[in-house]
Amino acid sequence: MSTAIRGIGELVTWDDDQPIRRDAGLVIDDGRVAWVGASADTPAADEVIEADGAAVIPGFVDSHTHLVFAGDRAEEFAARMAGRRYEAGGIRTTVAATRAASTEQLAAGAEARLAELRAQGTTTVEIKSGYGLDVATEARLLEVAAALTPETTYLGAHVVPSGVDPDAYIALVTGAMLEACAPHAKWIDVFCETGAFDADQARTVLRAGQAAGLLPRIHANQLGYGPGVQLACEVGAAAADHCTYLSDADVAALAETGVVAGLLPGVEFSTRHPYPDARRLLDAGVRVAIATDCNPGTSYTSSMSFCIALAVREMGLTPTEALHAATQGGAWSLQRTDVGHLRLGARADLVVLNAPSHLHLAYRPGVPLMRQVVRAAV
Amino acid sequence: MSTAIRGIGELVTWDDDQPIRRDAGLVIDDGRVAWVGASADTPAADEVIEADGAAVIPGFVDSHTHLVFAGDRAEEFAARMAGRRYEAGGIRTTVAATRAASTEQLAAGAEARLAELRAQGTTTVEIKSGYGLDVATEARLLEVAAALTPETTYLGAHVVPSGVDPDAYIALVTGAMLEACAPHAKWIDVFCETGAFDADQARTVLRAGQAAGLLPRIHANQLGYGPGVQLACEVGAAAADHCTYLSDADVAALAETGVVAGLLPGVEFSTRHPYPDARRLLDAGVRVAIATDCNPGTSYTSSMSFCIALAVREMGLTPTEALHAATQGGAWSLQRTDVGHLRLGARADLVVLNAPSHLHLAYRPGVPLMRQVVRAAV
Repeated sequence: MSTAIRGIGELVTWDDDQPIRRDAGLVIDDGRVAWVGASADTPAADEVIEADGAAVIPGFVDSHTHLVFAGDRAEEFAARMAGRRYEAGGIRTTVAATRAASTEQLAAGAEARLAELRAQGTTTVEIKSGYGLDVATEARLLEVAAALTPETTYLGAHVVPSGVDPDAYIALVTGAMLEACAPHAKWIDVFCETGAFDADQARTVLRAGQAAGLLPRIHANQLGYGPGVQLACEVGAAAADHCTYLSDADVAALAETGVVAGLLPGVEFSTRHPYPDARRLLDAGVRVAIATDCNPGTSYTSSMSFCIALAVREMGLTPTEALHAATQGGAWSLQRTDVGHLRLGARADLVVLNAPSHLHLAYRPGVPLMRQVVRAAV
Repeated sequence: MSTAIRGIGELVTWDDDQPIRRDAGLVIDDGRVAWVGASADTPAADEVIEADGAAVIPGFVDSHTHLVFAGDRAEEFAARMAGRRYEAGGIRTTVAATRAASTEQLAAGAEARLAELRAQGTTTVEIKSGYGLDVATEARLLEVAAALTPETTYLGAHVVPSGVDPDAYIALVTGAMLEACAPHAKWIDVFCETGAFDADQARTVLRAGQAAGLLPRIHANQLGYGPGVQLACEVGAAAADHCTYLSDADVAALAETGVVAGLLPGVEFSTRHPYPDARRLLDAGVRVAIATDCNPGTSYTSSMSFCIALAVREMGLTPTEALHAATQGGAWSLQRTDVGHLRLGARADLVVLNAPSHLHLAYRPGVPLMRQVVRAAV
């Protein structure tokens, strides 16, 4: 089964020679990009999509979400907007609701949210655990996540649950909980932050995960300066996510090691924290990803377009750089070479926009611009 | 034909006694709200919508848009985000493209944008002219607008067209252009701002419009302090829109006269100007509306939800106050008593949200939450 898309006003491939083409065509064969060229030269195919001058972009790669949970924190959001600051402890509200939910309820909620993401153009998504904080619930969360995406992350070390000794909890996270969760996870993650886990604890968690065959990533430097980014570089993490408070040494370490800086502007929007300085990172040669951090506490957006618009308004990126971070950047963050671009051989995950240019993703903030989302079945 | 909506988790009516009800039902008869009460008591009707716990809100009233135009200013937007400031003259780019477009092209573009607004929950919309700036084109724009909404606004006095003497242009706007446009318009508007029209010119325009039977509204105090708000109060305008730079005397005058302050946060988002202080206005007793200002230069969003989220994040409103400003506030701005609320007798213009509470409009920024948009055919 092959599909040709003709009359593409603007095609974003991130190809080295011609990252953005005008008046293009593209052919999908067996779920992969098989041909890219001028619209008039488009080969015949089993099925034809007429883009009528619309822009076509790679599907978004959302490299940081917490889609599996129960409960609603809208009232907490409204209270925070009226003046109360976010502290990491708010996570425990969701933990209580999540533990009380059945696996079927958790799966139904996550499936609904995933459908919402996909309708908004996200074709690859990472999903973390972290609202169970006990062996059985963390494993349930990862089983639900693994049914939805290969990009599953074990985040037992999200916070220390209420009433539990921190050392005992680290032992659990790196022992019985890791054993129960590792079969369902690709990644190991830890929230390295004041109020969550310090550098030594975080290192212990990541090293144990690596020993169990998981790949490390980290929540780092969200609420203040701290050791998280340096730890990410030390252990060879794929990504250090948040990166709101970075020293010059942190920026230099990211640039040198190639650890991806994951920026999550929905969090800053929804908590009124200062935005990370994406411009500074790009100018220093750091690889940058943008993701939603979709979660019920600090960023309940599922819209990558919205995050792109924020990155342009608030973080110093051009619309093109922001789209790159939301596609190719996400793929780097997940160490995937098959998504986040539309070069020959890429997975045919793409979005036909209701717009002539990718600039409209930032130019038309808040507007759903997805005419058609194509996602390869491979 | 009657329709009952049952199982409404949260019903926003803006009724004095109970502005927001839980577990409610609502009956529509002949396009009007005929009954509101407890879900279990909902009377029988010809058709039944099961809300399944979803929130129901009044349809948005977008009291300030420029939906009829041709051309695209995405490149200008991208350049501005990279550092260039907005000046009022950018309007002329759209004027050139609009004059060159056929009436059919203008109508097709405006219809597509109106469909986009409606899909996002807007059920009443104001549409301005102002991209013609000559007699024939201004009249064409208003004919197109009048086919789409009764809330049409003659804005010949948007800017002085290139190469035209300002005094001669005021004479045209208040003479032949007014004569051609008044039959298609409800409102007269003027952009009172440095670089556009000063207070004396603006007063001349508004008074001429009033003499022709049009009702005054005004673009005021967008780019700096100025006389626009005071002029709005002097002439008894329905609304002074923008209100970014207000003196204490301006705020006091708005509160005293009841002139609605129309806030357009999409503009500040897309131009990186400071946001107006909505909190200050509400605390002073000013009536506040939120609108998109949907236009290709300074705010090409069509999403009232996005504007609500910005009002909460950036302008000091609670989610409930922001929704009120986007519904009842818009109705005040357009001097409409039949829309913007769901009290008995209201037009049955409403939205069933994919959410249990209206708080989600701000809690879930950028996410399309419209499960069903109901718009009365009356």
